[in-house]
Amino acid sequence: MHGGHKVSYQLKKGIKLFALNSNQSLAKEMAKHLGCEVGRSSVTQFSDGEIQVNIEESVRGSDVYVVQSTSHPNNDHIMELLIMIDALKRASAKMINVVIPYYSYARQDRKARSREPITAKLIANLLEKSGATRILTMDFHSPQVQGFFDIPVDHLIGIPILAQYFEKKGLEDVVIVAPHNGAVGRARKMANLLNAPLALIDRRRPTPYTSEILNIIGNIEGKNTIIVDDLINTAATTTLAANALMEHGAKEVYACCTHAVLSGLAVERIESSAIQELVVTNTIDQPDEKQINKITKLSVAPLLADAIDRIHNEKAVSPLFE
Amino acid sequence: MHGGHKVSYQLKKGIKLFALNSNQSLAKEMAKHLGCEVGRSSVTQFSDGEIQVNIEESVRGSDVYVVQSTSHPNNDHIMELLIMIDALKRASAKMINVVIPYYSYARQDRKARSREPITAKLIANLLEKSGATRILTMDFHSPQVQGFFDIPVDHLIGIPILAQYFEKKGLEDVVIVAPHNGAVGRARKMANLLNAPLALIDRRRPTPYTSEILNIIGNIEGKNTIIVDDLINTAATTTLAANALMEHGAKEVYACCTHAVLSGLAVERIESSAIQELVVTNTIDQPDEKQINKITKLSVAPLLADAIDRIHNEKAVSPLFE
Amino acid sequence: MHGGHKVSYQLKKGIKLFALNSNQSLAKEMAKHLGCEVGRSSVTQFSDGEIQVNIEESVRGSDVYVVQSTSHPNNDHIMELLIMIDALKRASAKMINVVIPYYSYARQDRKARSREPITAKLIANLLEKSGATRILTMDFHSPQVQGFFDIPVDHLIGIPILAQYFEKKGLEDVVIVAPHNGAVGRARKMANLLNAPLALIDRRRPTPYTSEILNIIGNIEGKNTIIVDDLINTAATTTLAANALMEHGAKEVYACCTHAVLSGLAVERIESSAIQELVVTNTIDQPDEKQINKITKLSVAPLLADAIDRIHNEKAVSPLFE
Amino acid sequence: MHGGHKVSYQLKKGIKLFALNSNQSLAKEMAKHLGCEVGRSSVTQFSDGEIQVNIEESVRGSDVYVVQSTSHPNNDHIMELLIMIDALKRASAKMINVVIPYYSYARQDRKARSREPITAKLIANLLEKSGATRILTMDFHSPQVQGFFDIPVDHLIGIPILAQYFEKKGLEDVVIVAPHNGAVGRARKMANLLNAPLALIDRRRPTPYTSEILNIIGNIEGKNTIIVDDLINTAATTTLAANALMEHGAKEVYACCTHAVLSGLAVERIESSAIQELVVTNTIDQPDEKQINKITKLSVAPLLADAIDRIHNEKAVSPLFE
Amino acid sequence: MHGGHKVSYQLKKGIKLFALNSNQSLAKEMAKHLGCEVGRSSVTQFSDGEIQVNIEESVRGSDVYVVQSTSHPNNDHIMELLIMIDALKRASAKMINVVIPYYSYARQDRKARSREPITAKLIANLLEKSGATRILTMDFHSPQVQGFFDIPVDHLIGIPILAQYFEKKGLEDVVIVAPHNGAVGRARKMANLLNAPLALIDRRRPTPYTSEILNIIGNIEGKNTIIVDDLINTAATTTLAANALMEHGAKEVYACCTHAVLSGLAVERIESSAIQELVVTNTIDQPDEKQINKITKLSVAPLLADAIDRIHNEKAVSPLFE
Amino acid sequence: MHGGHKVSYQLKKGIKLFALNSNQSLAKEMAKHLGCEVGRSSVTQFSDGEIQVNIEESVRGSDVYVVQSTSHPNNDHIMELLIMIDALKRASAKMINVVIPYYSYARQDRKARSREPITAKLIANLLEKSGATRILTMDFHSPQVQGFFDIPVDHLIGIPILAQYFEKKGLEDVVIVAPHNGAVGRARKMANLLNAPLALIDRRRPTPYTSEILNIIGNIEGKNTIIVDDLINTAATTTLAANALMEHGAKEVYACCTHAVLSGLAVERIESSAIQELVVTNTIDQPDEKQINKITKLSVAPLLADAIDRIHNEKAVSPLFE
Repeated sequence: MHGGHKVSYQLKKGIKLFALNSNQSLAKEMAKHLGCEVGRSSVTQFSDGEIQVNIEESVRGSDVYVVQSTSHPNNDHIMELLIMIDALKRASAKMINVVIPYYSYARQDRKARSREPITAKLIANLLEKSGATRILTMDFHSPQVQGFFDIPVDHLIGIPILAQYFEKKGLEDVVIVAPHNGAVGRARKMANLLNAPLALIDRRRPTPYTSEILNIIGNIEGKNTIIVDDLINTAATTTLAANALMEHGAKEVYACCTHAVLSGLAVERIESSAIQELVVTNTIDQPDEKQINKITKLSVAPLLADAIDRIHNEKAVSPLFE
Repeated sequence: MHGGHKVSYQLKKGIKLFALNSNQSLAKEMAKHLGCEVGRSSVTQFSDGEIQVNIEESVRGSDVYVVQSTSHPNNDHIMELLIMIDALKRASAKMINVVIPYYSYARQDRKARSREPITAKLIANLLEKSGATRILTMDFHSPQVQGFFDIPVDHLIGIPILAQYFEKKGLEDVVIVAPHNGAVGRARKMANLLNAPLALIDRRRPTPYTSEILNIIGNIEGKNTIIVDDLINTAATTTLAANALMEHGAKEVYACCTHAVLSGLAVERIESSAIQELVVTNTIDQPDEKQINKITKLSVAPLLADAIDRIHNEKAVSPLFE
Repeated sequence: MHGGHKVSYQLKKGIKLFALNSNQSLAKEMAKHLGCEVGRSSVTQFSDGEIQVNIEESVRGSDVYVVQSTSHPNNDHIMELLIMIDALKRASAKMINVVIPYYSYARQDRKARSREPITAKLIANLLEKSGATRILTMDFHSPQVQGFFDIPVDHLIGIPILAQYFEKKGLEDVVIVAPHNGAVGRARKMANLLNAPLALIDRRRPTPYTSEILNIIGNIEGKNTIIVDDLINTAATTTLAANALMEHGAKEVYACCTHAVLSGLAVERIESSAIQELVVTNTIDQPDEKQINKITKLSVAPLLADAIDRIHNEKAVSPLFE
Repeated sequence: MHGGHKVSYQLKKGIKLFALNSNQSLAKEMAKHLGCEVGRSSVTQFSDGEIQVNIEESVRGSDVYVVQSTSHPNNDHIMELLIMIDALKRASAKMINVVIPYYSYARQDRKARSREPITAKLIANLLEKSGATRILTMDFHSPQVQGFFDIPVDHLIGIPILAQYFEKKGLEDVVIVAPHNGAVGRARKMANLLNAPLALIDRRRPTPYTSEILNIIGNIEGKNTIIVDDLINTAATTTLAANALMEHGAKEVYACCTHAVLSGLAVERIESSAIQELVVTNTIDQPDEKQINKITKLSVAPLLADAIDRIHNEKAVSPLFE
Repeated sequence: MHGGHKVSYQLKKGIKLFALNSNQSLAKEMAKHLGCEVGRSSVTQFSDGEIQVNIEESVRGSDVYVVQSTSHPNNDHIMELLIMIDALKRASAKMINVVIPYYSYARQDRKARSREPITAKLIANLLEKSGATRILTMDFHSPQVQGFFDIPVDHLIGIPILAQYFEKKGLEDVVIVAPHNGAVGRARKMANLLNAPLALIDRRRPTPYTSEILNIIGNIEGKNTIIVDDLINTAATTTLAANALMEHGAKEVYACCTHAVLSGLAVERIESSAIQELVVTNTIDQPDEKQINKITKLSVAPLLADAIDRIHNEKAVSPLFE
Repeated sequence: MHGGHKVSYQLKKGIKLFALNSNQSLAKEMAKHLGCEVGRSSVTQFSDGEIQVNIEESVRGSDVYVVQSTSHPNNDHIMELLIMIDALKRASAKMINVVIPYYSYARQDRKARSREPITAKLIANLLEKSGATRILTMDFHSPQVQGFFDIPVDHLIGIPILAQYFEKKGLEDVVIVAPHNGAVGRARKMANLLNAPLALIDRRRPTPYTSEILNIIGNIEGKNTIIVDDLINTAATTTLAANALMEHGAKEVYACCTHAVLSGLAVERIESSAIQELVVTNTIDQPDEKQINKITKLSVAPLLADAIDRIHNEKAVSPLFE
């Protein structure tokens, strides 16, 4: 478990940690944990929209870690990352470890309809082609995305951090709620850690002409419910679920996720919803206006720093999965 | 929808359909639908265990379709397929379309624990490296396996065939049951087609020292329940679920899946279980002793033949997804 | 030479022309020349910044042409293009011809300093990896960028279109001016077509503490000068050059380029500069506010349409280079 | 020369030796020579035929050696190996050295007839694609199979071990016999080491309607003959040759090979043949019932262990070839 | 069988046959058989040694065949070929079929000693990387070289042409002689076609201080002997063998091979040797001074032309192997 | 700056420097600077034109540097290099750093006309495919050739060495002359280092029927002119330029370049031209007869040795660019 105590790492010579534009504060926190500096580099955008990456110290022969979430503005962050990797490769970095706390486009992981792209695979291909030699990431939308890569992927999960928080909180009569079919697996993991039962919100549209019906499967009456998901984007699904839970007699509704995308009306919806508290992590950097009281932010920096230390010193990363 | 009426296909010159050892009867049925012969080829196994593939007619410039499920004995069937693809490539086939009605190892699609392989991705890599130019398959365990390929994948699903059968059967008060967390998505699709509600069987082990508890989430009392899964292997999960449903007051229990793996004690378990009828398809060939009365087998040959016709004649395959 | 007369093309069955978001008007003009429709597709951007590409007609077996300049917002346009290519590949398009009238990042085509990326090569790698099978483009910043690709590149040039315009204008006593060292080759080509002498503007900074000196090499006194470049971005270089030419006694100053990037203060600078007329092409779409009177826009649609017709019907594209 | 004396190896930190299912006893013997343990791993086969590889200790950053002959059941052993390599690659092993004492399918190394595969090349492609970084093997059927790989291959030969045995035996008037055309090269090497003359058994079928004639070219009358081959499979060729040699006046017949495949009726044939003694190595593990008195088994473990030591410590492997 | 009668080929539209510098006369003869022209192209060598390839007609969408033996000067001929392939690829040729009547460096097909290259594999890699899509060739030194390629290889053999010649000649009491161990396989094929027995010349050096001993294994006394090899280079081996055969009582000595390399003193040696007649093919072009009376040259043009016709029209090439 | 003082390098264990045939004297000079021996290897050419590379010491696990200019005979030198790389790869060298002081075919870096190859890219592809892991080179004809590689390229430039020489010479009233359009960039760099103005020689042909006109743009009257180019091949352009400069009133004409190709009549032309002194480097080895008094040769050995030291010891190479 992470976050509770200070660890001192013994970095071998030759590690370099760089941070691109998406989440500088997380990278700095990671560097503090690792006892190193964030490497000197910058990304400049010119008036015509082209970006230029500058690496201001030698990386020849180094074991480099580049931190970049591919959060909004996604395409800029992806291109920043690819260009950085190209620069590192040509500058003779020995290992190019790409740390992607939040991997966007991960929901486009299959062809749901004809002629759809599989963008999550495309991004994986682009990262490998550019020269990435390893991926360190958290909570892919589907764990199968690991198989989109042929390079090693260290895939960490946020559920233990979130579970630890709720455990300390000491709620009683807890039920874990999967807000849609795809979230059942994650909800099951949380339920295991908190030793709680499971409920599922099932949505269906009886005919094309009637509106969607939200059906709660499982017993939530009088319970403290915790909605679990990998990411919350517009918060429409989560807040609808929360309100439905309250209508069906839940005592209180909590929600949590690893990736707080919070786009569009998300913050307003959460503010005005039945959600008591939303617990998230800092894989995605948030502007100040999105940091409302209802939202509790936990840090994944200790976890990521520990993983980097283990990778760099060739120790097993597996203890972090437990 | 397929299977109801006879269609006459206009195959362009240059198509060749070959069948390897796993499922010759399905391939023959497909050929009949397509109005072509199964190409002359054979697979010989020598006493030292090596297999030799012989293609006994020219394939130069042809649009070749090779039918092979990678069912038991899996490794022999996989190697047969890879060797056949190598032979076709070197014999100057123009297109090598691999028809894999059942794609085994598909559950090894992510690293669930440290140092696990992702065998489903490995097989995808091997197929591409050998020279496959397209995959036509049915019901991957996870739809994300599509993204393990960089060549086009036409991914058909068996749910409509199974749903059509149950629709004709005219059961009333139906509830669709997902026998485990991973089956919820498929169960939802079946529920949509049959306009039925959903239930979920949630399994958990409260402590490492107590036995697993099987919890039914959703209302199944007095209902005709249909358990839905992509494949049934040892049938332990399915029959446990079936018995639990009956114990909790279900009226009758049906089960269905696309891939009838039926290994180990599967047939005995089904025979002695509460399952009224198990409906499967013929993606995997079954020996006679596994063909018991309780099991109804539907053919996917018309669906696969239609897909081949559309691929070969460059018509959209998308109508088959609806 | 193009643009003067209407040609009727005989497209073979199987061509599909799609337009992404960067330059729909150019694509429509090309389609009109080709006598075909622009294919039905759309690009949607969600509130979290992810884009989704939808192709709304079958492309199976088709010879597809996708038109996209990678102009501002560059990274979005690049990702749109890569995702579209991925979708086309998975949808079994036969050929994926990428038409990039303006290829951005082309100035990052070498390491000028340590640890720089070669972004123009990176983009080439990404396009090939995604599945592009041919590039049709205009005026790379350096012609060597052709060698960044291993797939066929049809590289058209805009100088003949620009030269034809100036020829019709009937200016006398013309001198062609290269506004910087890198433009001498292009200026020489224009000078050949207009049978005019050459001048060069040489810039140097004698010491790090003095300001840059702009030196005109060649005779421009009393002449009608035409500044030639591949692209005009902020217009700082061009307008400085124009003003210097007037100060040194030029009669009039014209400027021209293929790619009108016109970012930042470009339009204001041009408006207030000594430039009499700036002649550009429509490889980059311009918003209305950038369409000022001083700027004359020529269309490359006939040239690109003619190239597509020749590629599709397997005729030599070489006549278009003359 | 190997086997005679005990050597103590100084393994650098970071070596890991794993053994898959084909030849655990050889691997253990190698480990003893190297002074290391066989790494903890297991291969499980489920009732549906799928195999699962478990690596039970960290391999991150290690120089891994995996020992697996691809002997019977060939396809299972090949798939075990490929899956193991995939797991090692994803677990961040630094080097994946594949030790294949016996490489099966090696006789399918060219297209002898139309539309044949070149399976030996296919296997090489599969190994490289899976992530193997080096091959250590013995006596390919043709030495050209080395060129099927683009990764380094250390190719050891068994002839010196076999020759050393016969030298110690002290036979006089020895003639080395190639039992078919393809064995002449190997027989020549043995003849050089034992300083003996050569004979060749030439087989031909005068017309399609007559039976094959076995013609002995060279003088073997009254001689101690030693038949040399790379592998003995069904032993039909070898025992026919042995009997013919005796019929034509040979004094005694010995036979030897590196790879004792011994499939089908091989052991019975040898037992009842004119062969005095068959000398083989332990590249292929044999069940007890195949270990008859007539067969002498020499160990290649010292040779393979020495090679691993040299590879791991970056010393030349070439002395082992002499 | 080829060469005896005139065949009229129906070439589909779109074939182009180009000849590089090594063997223009063979290419012209092939073109005559195919009823087409040799495509207009040229190779220029500048004074600094660089060569430039010019293709003077459109190849866009064509099925191109390029004829080039990689005979002396080998490296120039190889580079010519690779540059031509690059040019064809960039000029959008549809298929690039490389016709290599003589593939040099084929004897470097394995590591015989430490740190040797496998040049025959390297050349295969270079051809594939440059863009070759098929190889049509004759008599690789080892048939395994086919497996060095992953693209289709049509590998023709010269033995039937040579056998046909000797058959017509009507020699009696023929023995086929393999002049060294590696030639036994080829000699066996010739012996089959002429229904003749086999002899082998075995060379060994008893100690490092004694000279090589040439031992004839098999009965050649009073016989018409025919030495068979794939290529004759310096003719040292062949002429030593011929003289030894005569010394041991052969009646007459003939020799034959597919590839007449004839370098160094070859022609002088043949002229002064016991060889009655040397029969070769025209896979390698010979200067006039090497065309002596003793050497009979047979043409492979009909065979190669027939193969191209079959490849281009997608008919089986296998009949040419019989 | 290099060449002025003796530096002592601390080579880490494991470096190996090999020299192929093109420029042994430069390699020896580099080895002396590095304080190491040139590795034992040889290249043999047989009478049939095939070359064989022999590496006579172990390279297993070594960081290897191979020195080879691809100068005349270009194709032999290229093939030597590719074969050497293949041998090193198969012999398990850890890093294969290819040092190419002069990279020929670099002017074929784009398609200037239809159906041209891009030979400079082809060579890059061949080097990467063979197994090169890094390129160290000097003055590509276009800096964009760096982007033809996906492996790291350390690209050094000769201008500072040449500038240092002219600075020491103490010429006054210097003007730097670009002898053609493509040389303006390099001339500008030299002008910056010597703080001198620029002139350009512009060549054009007014009509196809008139001869070329050589026009000097910029003021050179009474000046000491220095013609700057990357390479001088036949010296036709340089000597024409030199003579034109004298005719137009230049005081003296000097010329310089990095790569002294000097093919054809180059030396005679220089001898009889107006050029006072030609300053070159030793990237290309010259036979004695080309070493005339007018030509001053500077050594790049210290620069290349310093680069190797920095690469091998993982220090930034960037100081060498300044």
